[in-house]
Amino acid sequence: MPAITYELIRRDEATGARAGVLHTPHGSFPTPIFMPVGTQASVKAVSPDELEDLGANIILGNTYHLFLRPGPDLIREGGGLHTFMRWKRGILTDSGGFQVFSLGPLRKITEEGVTFRSHIDGSKQFLSPEISIAVQTALGSDIVMAFDECVPYPADRTYTADSLARTLRWAKRCQKAMTREDQGLFGIVQGGMYHDLRAESVAALIEMDLPGYAVGGLSVGEPPELMYEILESTTVLLPADKPRYLMGVGTPDCLVEGVARGIDMFDCVFPTRVARNGMAMTWTGRLVMKNTDYTHDHRPLEDNCGCYACRGGYTRAYIRHLVRAGEIFGLRLLTLHNLWFLQDFMRQMRQAILDGNFPDFRRNFLATYRSASKNKG
Amino acid sequence: MPAITYELIRRDEATGARAGVLHTPHGSFPTPIFMPVGTQASVKAVSPDELEDLGANIILGNTYHLFLRPGPDLIREGGGLHTFMRWKRGILTDSGGFQVFSLGPLRKITEEGVTFRSHIDGSKQFLSPEISIAVQTALGSDIVMAFDECVPYPADRTYTADSLARTLRWAKRCQKAMTREDQGLFGIVQGGMYHDLRAESVAALIEMDLPGYAVGGLSVGEPPELMYEILESTTVLLPADKPRYLMGVGTPDCLVEGVARGIDMFDCVFPTRVARNGMAMTWTGRLVMKNTDYTHDHRPLEDNCGCYACRGGYTRAYIRHLVRAGEIFGLRLLTLHNLWFLQDFMRQMRQAILDGNFPDFRRNFLATYRSASKNKG
Repeated sequence: MPAITYELIRRDEATGARAGVLHTPHGSFPTPIFMPVGTQASVKAVSPDELEDLGANIILGNTYHLFLRPGPDLIREGGGLHTFMRWKRGILTDSGGFQVFSLGPLRKITEEGVTFRSHIDGSKQFLSPEISIAVQTALGSDIVMAFDECVPYPADRTYTADSLARTLRWAKRCQKAMTREDQGLFGIVQGGMYHDLRAESVAALIEMDLPGYAVGGLSVGEPPELMYEILESTTVLLPADKPRYLMGVGTPDCLVEGVARGIDMFDCVFPTRVARNGMAMTWTGRLVMKNTDYTHDHRPLEDNCGCYACRGGYTRAYIRHLVRAGEIFGLRLLTLHNLWFLQDFMRQMRQAILDGNFPDFRRNFLATYRSASKNKG
Repeated sequence: MPAITYELIRRDEATGARAGVLHTPHGSFPTPIFMPVGTQASVKAVSPDELEDLGANIILGNTYHLFLRPGPDLIREGGGLHTFMRWKRGILTDSGGFQVFSLGPLRKITEEGVTFRSHIDGSKQFLSPEISIAVQTALGSDIVMAFDECVPYPADRTYTADSLARTLRWAKRCQKAMTREDQGLFGIVQGGMYHDLRAESVAALIEMDLPGYAVGGLSVGEPPELMYEILESTTVLLPADKPRYLMGVGTPDCLVEGVARGIDMFDCVFPTRVARNGMAMTWTGRLVMKNTDYTHDHRPLEDNCGCYACRGGYTRAYIRHLVRAGEIFGLRLLTLHNLWFLQDFMRQMRQAILDGNFPDFRRNFLATYRSASKNKG
């Protein structure tokens, strides 16, 4: 039995949206699923208890950051990432590829891997498919991501094709380097904005028979319509019995559009980052808490919300005060609210798929959400 | 029945240490008691639930800060400070005097009150005994502090005597300005480092028959021996049936020495501030978590500690990583640990008083604590 398996419960005929269950060594979780990001062995400002309470089931850890600090040896010595950070449910680790490629002039790519300088101390570092897998093996995440290049946008066809070919060679090296029975390797579909290269990528990865497939290289600056078009042409080629993960996407409109195109898994720093910037996510758009609209607003962030902040009676006026005063508890409340909001959003999408009314859900949500966002700037 | 009353349970004959119960409109709490500081309607980084969980019973709110932001009218509109910040147990508010006098050249004192410039926006502001009480009335704290001048150290006799006389006139104006049945006003003993002025202050305050008395103007830079000497000569004059509060003191050695001199209540930013600076308080001294001693230390901050961090299995190595990485969850764990430590410290002191072995407790603690602090820098 592979470490990671996917069970399809219902597929929405009109759109391709899927309700399923993801089975991992640390539990079985309903999909579609949103994974909060715990970059440095902590989802910023939030405790593992709070994550469980708000319904998070898998979190993402960043191999690049943990490789540099505190280092894989220390985390292995501390019992692996789950034990080190006291998180009992699922963990997916990225490969570090996205971060090292983002370093721009500070990195150099060869067939062997990528040489780069640490953003912490400027020291020279090296990551390769084998090293990325060795780090993720030490971390002991449930889902391991292949070491890839996320092609920037725009990129010409030659660059994209060459990069894709190397990413596929790297994926095979990653697969060969896997040693643990309790981990599953996901391949990452690349190919930039070229439909045929995406198709080539999918075909090569399917041949590797991996337990899951991610779609990478999207939401990198291209227009949303192009992103959705590439996403759709990619997901229709992916096998129905494997989970599909759209990397780095987490705004509500992108989530509903991703689900509509058959995506099962998402991650993004968006909900936690906007919380630290003083913003609350709601069903009708974002609230900028510093806004004077909320000075005398003694209502919760959202009516009938079950998050810690709203059910605890914390008001917009109080949270606004905390944000203005720079109090950590303010960003804690907003982080808990935003993460709850996205978990609730995913639950409601899943229910709509099960009930056969996902197209209505999608249409109604986008109508309300977009217009409210526009009004609130 | 006054809003605030004190019940003496047992007095240690050898030292004068007292175990008692403080009755307030928001509950009855065992003393001696340590009050965490919630400057801006939040104990930094901590939720009210967490405060209850670690055994905090009264917290302190700062009138100066809340006066400037968000302002007393907004907090009254939000149901008072308890409701605004969702804290069900006791609140003591200071008068704002300490903060405005700390502003140095930015403030001007007259008989009427103090004119000062806001540290937030530089705007001209005014606080007087009547305004301080009006603000604290709006906040709805259980214990209201009189508006006083905390005389700096050193200060000559003439300045100290003049300041004390004004502080006593202000105390009477405060008493006159009180309007709520559910609040009790504490007077503040001043008089600098002059025993006779301290005695004069005590006599005048006792004549006012207030529900409690604070000792102010200590721990302002004087040598510890002088502080203990002044404290002792003050507390012996205070009535046994009223609570005594030593303001702004919260290091473990000062707490045990304060209790030994008959103090029942303490507050200090110390445990929360050192947590944010990456330090853990323990029975044997402070741990500087960035220290490489803890890199591979997979033990809890303190053995057999019942705090959230220690009982949750978070290790020194993990917390060190979080502190170095600047993760908010690291300072949350340290804050919860330090506040628990002080609550536990107070509980154990109280038990020692009840068991009749407080002198042993004091001797043993100071021997272990001081030597360990010296070793660890």
